Amino acid sequence: MPDPRNIIIGVDLGGTHFQVGAVTGSGQIIARSRGETPEGGQFEIVSDTLARAIRAVCADADLTLADILGVGIGAPGAAVPTTGVILQAGNLPWSHVPLGANLSARLDDTRVIVDNDVNAATVGEHRLGAGKGATDMLGIWLGTGIGGGLILNNALHRGTYFSAGEIGQTVPDPDVARPNRILERQTSRAAIARRLAEAKGVHEDDMTSARIAELHGAGDPDAVRIIADATGLIGVSVANAITLLSLGRIVVGGGIVERMGEAIVGPIAEAARLDVFPDECRQTQFVATRLGDNAGLLGASLIARDALS
Amino acid sequence: MPDPRNIIIGVDLGGTHFQVGAVTGSGQIIARSRGETPEGGQFEIVSDTLARAIRAVCADADLTLADILGVGIGAPGAAVPTTGVILQAGNLPWSHVPLGANLSARLDDTRVIVDNDVNAATVGEHRLGAGKGATDMLGIWLGTGIGGGLILNNALHRGTYFSAGEIGQTVPDPDVARPNRILERQTSRAAIARRLAEAKGVHEDDMTSARIAELHGAGDPDAVRIIADATGLIGVSVANAITLLSLGRIVVGGGIVERMGEAIVGPIAEAARLDVFPDECRQTQFVATRLGDNAGLLGASLIARDALS
Repeated sequence: MPDPRNIIIGVDLGGTHFQVGAVTGSGQIIARSRGETPEGGQFEIVSDTLARAIRAVCADADLTLADILGVGIGAPGAAVPTTGVILQAGNLPWSHVPLGANLSARLDDTRVIVDNDVNAATVGEHRLGAGKGATDMLGIWLGTGIGGGLILNNALHRGTYFSAGEIGQTVPDPDVARPNRILERQTSRAAIARRLAEAKGVHEDDMTSARIAELHGAGDPDAVRIIADATGLIGVSVANAITLLSLGRIVVGGGIVERMGEAIVGPIAEAARLDVFPDECRQTQFVATRLGDNAGLLGASLIARDALS
Repeated sequence: MPDPRNIIIGVDLGGTHFQVGAVTGSGQIIARSRGETPEGGQFEIVSDTLARAIRAVCADADLTLADILGVGIGAPGAAVPTTGVILQAGNLPWSHVPLGANLSARLDDTRVIVDNDVNAATVGEHRLGAGKGATDMLGIWLGTGIGGGLILNNALHRGTYFSAGEIGQTVPDPDVARPNRILERQTSRAAIARRLAEAKGVHEDDMTSARIAELHGAGDPDAVRIIADATGLIGVSVANAITLLSLGRIVVGGGIVERMGEAIVGPIAEAARLDVFPDECRQTQFVATRLGDNAGLLGASLIARDALS
């Protein structure tokens, strides 16, 4: 039985689903639950749902709230870790909500540390997954949008407005008009699915990551072309990040990457290497995530552990 | 008389000229000299020239080499500060030259700290000039090329290959063919001068920063258009850096900026603010350098002081 005073409850909160896990000091998940984020995403209701799920996971692991070290949450949007406030959330109707304080009050004043969900996943991969050993790393997640997180000098870089890492919001090609000119509008998993669904004359919802992977694996010309376009453009944006920051590792994640692996990571690396500077940066390693779905909750627990230990 | 044990000799080495200055702990330059970098740039000859200039500046300031704390050099190209080696220099025919050790041997084993020239200028502006008070800052210098340096969390960011900051080598528009697709080929002072010289049917060498400023100030349509194109593209690249790193300050420098000031910094800021994410990043400040020509040698002295104190 691990020491309960060393347990952190990690939470990965998304726009549609969430995960809660009790994580030991060595990164083992000893109890967990998954659930749906309440429809409408109203703040008090979401906070209440998370509090119940956290209590349930504690009970599953034979822990009380008084035992554990604290709670770490990765939440969508711009989070201020020092105050626990979410300034703005992409997938939830939140503006300046005090998530940390609200949840703490629902959990008998258990200490709660809040950060951005992709920052959490980036820290998870850096410490326990595909980023191990990298000093300077970019994590990039292809999903409904494109999220990113930066490890610089072995530490998460948040920046002046706590918003660093947002490579999906950068402009790869200024010839494209706003708002579609940003990277994620052109190359996210959702953008790839939309373009491929159009080409095939099917509904976008039917173009799942599994279906995209299947078409691409079978050499379907539309799938090959659309994936090549997307990975080429992602490659240029990643090359710019490597050149600007002298990054040694790029970790690529998201459901479509878990399905397609090297078929999506390889072309991104190949495209990026054509544009990096100086030549040393051609050594930068490109790898798929290793923690998959667990990256966010593990990373949230690590961030909370650092803050609370 | 300042304490000689607290004096650093700062050196700003360029492809055509160099500057040497004796710098006090409070950033005062108490003696200095300027010179031409020996033609051909042969390493031993350049090192010998610098050693003589450093000895002369010491003598001017009534110091001996044994008195001073050390020497700091900002040199063009990729420098490894831990070993004093220049891996590659843009403007000099150098490959893996041991500048630090060679110069130290010529200076009775005085300790010599080597870094990239733009990194040095960035540190100079951050501590003593236009970057004061910024936690996360990009310095961008428009010259023959475009150089850049990054301050993140109040410290110079060098990255895994010691090459960070090279915004001039990033790709603002992937529709442009290589090698002209990188930012500096399209928007450096030299690129602006070349385009404007072509438009006016004059020789490129006659299109000095002063002449460009004069034409632009008089509302010449070619100058207005060419400067607008360049600042627009620089703006997109800077916006991408702000979004990726959550930067609070952008310091813009180079001879053309010293001449034109707000006429070049303003349009860069305006263009960048259209593309930054999130909205908080519209507060990022854009300022012209304050130290001008002294940024490099002052910054080199500060980097050396940190390393040697």
